[in-house]
Amino acid sequence: MKKLLNTADSFVRDTMEGIEAAYGDRVGLLDGDYRVLVSRYPTRQDKVGVVTAGGSGHLPLFLGYVGQGLLDGCAVGEVFASPSAQKMADMIRACDRGRGVLCLYGNYNGDLFNFRMACDDVDLDDIETRQVLARDDVASAPPEEASRRRGVAGLVLAFKTAGAAAQEGLGLEEVAAVAQRTLDRTRTIGFALSPCVVPRVGEPTFSVGEDDIEVGMGIHGEAGIETRPMMSAHEVAQLAVETIEADMPLSEGEEVCVMVNGLGATPLEEQLIVYRSVHSLLSARGVGIVMPHVGEYATSMEMAGLSVTVLRLDDQLRGLLQAPAVSPFYTATSAGTSR
Amino acid sequence: MKKLLNTADSFVRDTMEGIEAAYGDRVGLLDGDYRVLVSRYPTRQDKVGVVTAGGSGHLPLFLGYVGQGLLDGCAVGEVFASPSAQKMADMIRACDRGRGVLCLYGNYNGDLFNFRMACDDVDLDDIETRQVLARDDVASAPPEEASRRRGVAGLVLAFKTAGAAAQEGLGLEEVAAVAQRTLDRTRTIGFALSPCVVPRVGEPTFSVGEDDIEVGMGIHGEAGIETRPMMSAHEVAQLAVETIEADMPLSEGEEVCVMVNGLGATPLEEQLIVYRSVHSLLSARGVGIVMPHVGEYATSMEMAGLSVTVLRLDDQLRGLLQAPAVSPFYTATSAGTSR
Repeated sequence: MKKLLNTADSFVRDTMEGIEAAYGDRVGLLDGDYRVLVSRYPTRQDKVGVVTAGGSGHLPLFLGYVGQGLLDGCAVGEVFASPSAQKMADMIRACDRGRGVLCLYGNYNGDLFNFRMACDDVDLDDIETRQVLARDDVASAPPEEASRRRGVAGLVLAFKTAGAAAQEGLGLEEVAAVAQRTLDRTRTIGFALSPCVVPRVGEPTFSVGEDDIEVGMGIHGEAGIETRPMMSAHEVAQLAVETIEADMPLSEGEEVCVMVNGLGATPLEEQLIVYRSVHSLLSARGVGIVMPHVGEYATSMEMAGLSVTVLRLDDQLRGLLQAPAVSPFYTATSAGTSR
Repeated sequence: MKKLLNTADSFVRDTMEGIEAAYGDRVGLLDGDYRVLVSRYPTRQDKVGVVTAGGSGHLPLFLGYVGQGLLDGCAVGEVFASPSAQKMADMIRACDRGRGVLCLYGNYNGDLFNFRMACDDVDLDDIETRQVLARDDVASAPPEEASRRRGVAGLVLAFKTAGAAAQEGLGLEEVAAVAQRTLDRTRTIGFALSPCVVPRVGEPTFSVGEDDIEVGMGIHGEAGIETRPMMSAHEVAQLAVETIEADMPLSEGEEVCVMVNGLGATPLEEQLIVYRSVHSLLSARGVGIVMPHVGEYATSMEMAGLSVTVLRLDDQLRGLLQAPAVSPFYTATSAGTSR
């Protein structure tokens, strides 16, 4: 499978240098280290830091949310691999302004292990940290084992609310509580139509049948709930809403944020067609949608497919979601998102 | 090839309904007609109208640039097919505020034929129009036949400058002149790695060899300059810059806008890796880059590949490019673009 790159070994470095070349006035490498991106947007100096980390290959996740009203920093590893604890610790130190740092990331063993080490490390410098993990993928474990669930696209909405809370000047405990509440009220399910290629592997690391759709497949190709014959856009939307509602009931009159997230190769037209059905299904039962997100927010390189995320809002979360935020890859205004 | 849709016949309608469902507070269907999208952003009432039209299947082109400081309206046809003259005329009438309407679109026979009819039609109502065509694809004809060249991603930069000129209150002649000058100074070349699937056809309408890259292929799969064995990202950037410079020389000390545009299935990482090389090649010869655009701006559904566009700026065009603009799919601020 063909990829537009120089060498597999320089894939992450070249990507990071591309980000710095394009957007170096707004974000930049920490001390020239291509493993850590930090915000250069103007910001208040008494702000709690909000950071993340994860494997490469998911742009705009994770790097694309370093910005204003979003993340202060992001450490990245190789494609689909965690960065080291050392890089995470460097980032946390750089993003602390004396009020502590929230580490907000997906529930994967490598990231969890390394972030714990990094937090222990910076504790020696009296930097206070909190860790909040995204476990929004309903397909990755049954409800009784929800703590095992993986973090996927829903994490982006927690970046948004926690980033806004930090921007407002809230303290570390409060910012962490906002992130946790956001994720407690967020569910995602993904659908994969084709695999992706890790540069160093050079061929698909898993397969999807020619006429099949994988329901609940993870963003690294982790097995999902089931394999089905290819479904229509409306059937995908129905199954997504049903699966999410079975795990997190929605009530008439309540408001949610919906994200339809393209995994990489799926055209925006198709994402909008699925959104159309999600919108009509939720509207029909009296659930309002605030600030829909339709586009590529968390990808798996050239994987075809999409995920559907629902976040149940309350007054505070709605306000934080709609607060202005900007990065080179994401914009939110009171009028909504804009890409 | 699998697509997330309901029926091929409802592909465009469903997409348009998805746009209205997601962004109906900012853009909307004209009188409920799914062939015409118009801006609902607040705007000055003495503004020249700027509109476009084209086939579906290229999102965010064309619909995604209906917004504020951008386009007032867009008519769309079926996938890769022109809308009718009637829909274009409806749109022009809706977007005229007494100061005339600029029709700004790509050089394709169907669009040209229909826009001419539409302009004749609205002339009966004393609506003044001007037509400016994008012919930025250097690979589609040699310099001596430049008038035959197709319009591709460079059109987006003309939407931006002409939209800003209209927003500033300039008259129809002046707005048309801005669009024309932008396009006179814009060149694009595309590279395709894989084909795309038109929903009603259901299989790829052209092919790209397993280990090949098509240099200069058009956004509907039109033949390009040559087929080459797969190239590295840096080689692609080199060939792009060389080809553009051979057609439009760049001078040390001048400033350009660069767009690296993903055609659909190519990951953002790879687009950034190509941008990195374009940036370093231009920087090395003393050409400055203003407001780089890296992302999907004009796609061919799930085609893999990308295009590189260079716009030679002058003081007026730089200012118009950097003027604030927003749509559900595009944001520009003085700090740069943001997706």
